[in-house]
Amino acid sequence: MIRTVIWGLGAMGSGMARRIASKPGYQIVGAIDLRPELVGSDLADLEGLSTIPRGVIVSADAQGVLADTGPDITMVATNSFVEAVLPNLEAVLNAGSNCITLAEEMAYPWKSHPEEAAALDQLAQQCGVTLLGTGVNPGFVLDTLVLLLTGVCSYVDHIFASRVNNLAEFGPTVMQSQGVGITPSEFDEGIRRGDIVGHVGFRQSIDMIADAVGWSLDEIVEERQPILSSVQRISRYARVEAGMVAGCNHVAYGTMNGREMIRMEHPQQVMPELEDVSTGDRIVIAGKPDIRMEISPEIPGGVATINLAVNMMASVLTAPPGLKTMLDLPLPHYTCLDGC
Amino acid sequence: MIRTVIWGLGAMGSGMARRIASKPGYQIVGAIDLRPELVGSDLADLEGLSTIPRGVIVSADAQGVLADTGPDITMVATNSFVEAVLPNLEAVLNAGSNCITLAEEMAYPWKSHPEEAAALDQLAQQCGVTLLGTGVNPGFVLDTLVLLLTGVCSYVDHIFASRVNNLAEFGPTVMQSQGVGITPSEFDEGIRRGDIVGHVGFRQSIDMIADAVGWSLDEIVEERQPILSSVQRISRYARVEAGMVAGCNHVAYGTMNGREMIRMEHPQQVMPELEDVSTGDRIVIAGKPDIRMEISPEIPGGVATINLAVNMMASVLTAPPGLKTMLDLPLPHYTCLDGC
Repeated sequence: MIRTVIWGLGAMGSGMARRIASKPGYQIVGAIDLRPELVGSDLADLEGLSTIPRGVIVSADAQGVLADTGPDITMVATNSFVEAVLPNLEAVLNAGSNCITLAEEMAYPWKSHPEEAAALDQLAQQCGVTLLGTGVNPGFVLDTLVLLLTGVCSYVDHIFASRVNNLAEFGPTVMQSQGVGITPSEFDEGIRRGDIVGHVGFRQSIDMIADAVGWSLDEIVEERQPILSSVQRISRYARVEAGMVAGCNHVAYGTMNGREMIRMEHPQQVMPELEDVSTGDRIVIAGKPDIRMEISPEIPGGVATINLAVNMMASVLTAPPGLKTMLDLPLPHYTCLDGC
Repeated sequence: MIRTVIWGLGAMGSGMARRIASKPGYQIVGAIDLRPELVGSDLADLEGLSTIPRGVIVSADAQGVLADTGPDITMVATNSFVEAVLPNLEAVLNAGSNCITLAEEMAYPWKSHPEEAAALDQLAQQCGVTLLGTGVNPGFVLDTLVLLLTGVCSYVDHIFASRVNNLAEFGPTVMQSQGVGITPSEFDEGIRRGDIVGHVGFRQSIDMIADAVGWSLDEIVEERQPILSSVQRISRYARVEAGMVAGCNHVAYGTMNGREMIRMEHPQQVMPELEDVSTGDRIVIAGKPDIRMEISPEIPGGVATINLAVNMMASVLTAPPGLKTMLDLPLPHYTCLDGC
C-alpha cells in the first residue's frame, strides 16, 4: 500500500483525498491543515466517505504527521506561490516522502525561481525522493499539451494558446481574485493593490515551452484588463450589472530578439455565453506544419487538476529523485486501476 | 556528433535524411537501400542537399554499412510490418546502434507480436541500446494524444477517435492500397486479395490505449468499406467517377466484456471536401470529465511522421536500453536546436 498524506484540505486537497481513497493500492495515512475548524476532525467525517478509513485526524502539526506516518508520497495543496509553499515542500522532502504540489509556480520554477528550484532539486536528490509541480494550468493545457503538439513540427514560428472559461461555479474567493461584479475603477485599484491577480502560472507555462523549444526569451510581459459586461450576469456567487466587470482578461507574451514568440490569453469571467463567447482551450502553432487545436468546452479546471495530480502519482513514485516537471516524466494518462 | 544511418530511402527515409542533415550535432554517416537505381549513388546528390556531406554512398549491404560506420542511431523506414522489419531491427541492435523505426506495427507490438517484442526488448537490453517505433499514426494522433487527454480524467467510459484526411497529394501506391478510383466490386475483391489494406496500425493504437488505461479487451474488430463518391473527383494520381470508390473507410473497435470501449475511424479518400466532408483529427473521451478535441485540418501525415521521428532522437539516445513505446518516453516536443 502506498502511504499518502494530504497537506491542505481546500477544494483541491479534499478532491484529491476523495480520489485517492478509492484508488486501489493507496492508503491515506495523514491529513494536515492549519484551519482550527478542521484540526481534530476525522478525515472520513469531513469528506463523508466510507472509503477513507476512520482514524485519520486532521492535524496542524505537519512535522508530527510526516514523522509519525512516514508517507511514501505527500500531496501539497496549500498555496500558489513558491515562496509560501517552500517550507512545506522542504518538510515533506526531509521526511523522505515523494511529493506532488499544486502550487502553480512550482509547475516550472527553474526560470522564475532558479535558486529555490536548484535547492529543492538538490534536497530531493539527497533525500532520494521526487518532487513534481502540476495541475491543469500551468501543468497541462497551456504547456504540456502545447509542447506535445509541437512534436510533429520541423519548425515553430509562433505559439498561441488561449483558455476561455466560465467562473460561474466558483466561490467568493475566485470572484474577488478576478474582480467579478465590481466597477472598472475598483478593478484598476484591485490590480494596483494586488488583490486582483488573474491567472497564476503564465510565467511558468511560457518558461517551460521556451526552455523545451530552445528559445531564449528577452522578457515575458503580463497584462490584466477588466472584462466589461454589456449585459446583466447573475450566478450563485456573482452579480454583474451591465457596464460592470465580469472578470479579468489576463494575457501574457514572451519575446525573443524583440519579436513575440509565444502569446497566451486566459480571460476568466462569469457566464461568457451571455455575450456569445464560447468557452474552450485553443492552441495555434504557426510552423511547419501549422496546427490548430480546439477543446470545446474547455477542460474543467478544478477536477482536471485533481485528476492529473492523482494520475501522476505512479510516475512520481517511480521517477529518479529530484525536482521534476511535466517535461521530464512519461506521458500522463488515466489508468482504470486508479479508481474505475 | 551523433552518427546516424538512414535505412530505407523512400519518402519517409528521404525526409528524415533531409531534416537530420540540418540538425546541429547530428551527422549522416550511412544510407542503406536495396533498390538498384539508388545503390551506388551519393546521398547528397540524391537529396540535392549541400547540408549532407558528400561521400555517403547508398549501399544494399546493411551489415557492412552498420559495421563500417558504427552509428549511434539508425532510422529504419523500410516496411510497415513487424515480420518484414524484424531482421532489419535485429541487425541494427546487434551493431550496437539505437534505433527508431517507422514500421506501424512496431509502434506498440507488445500485444500483436508478443514474442517478437519480447525478443527485441531482450536484444536491445543486451546490446545496451534503445528501440522505438513511432510515427504520426500509430504513434501520435490516435494513441499518444488520446492518452494524454485522459490524463485529466478520473474515469473513462468510452474513447472515440477519428482521423479524416485527404489523399489527393499521395502517389499511385497509396491510391491502390486504398482502392481509389475503382468500382465497388473491384474494391471488395481487393480487400479479399489483401491488396487494399486501409490503415496499418489500428490494432497497435488500440492495444497501447487499452494497456495504459488498464482495460483487458475481448477483441479488436476491423472493418473496411468503400467510400463511394457521388461526384467526380480528379487529383494528380486519381480519377474517381461518380459511383466509384474515392477511398477506404477503415474503422476499428475494441470491446471489453462485450461492450465497445474504444472506437477509431480513419476514412482515407481523395478530395473529401467535394462532398462537404472536412478533414481533421477528432477525439471524444466520454468520462469524468468529457473531453472533445478537434484538430482541423488534420495533422498532415507524411511530414508529421518524419518530424516526430527526428524530434524523438534525443529521447531515444538518452533512454534506458530496451524496446520502448511513446508511453515510456518523456513528452515529445520540437526543439529549435533540431534545425530551426
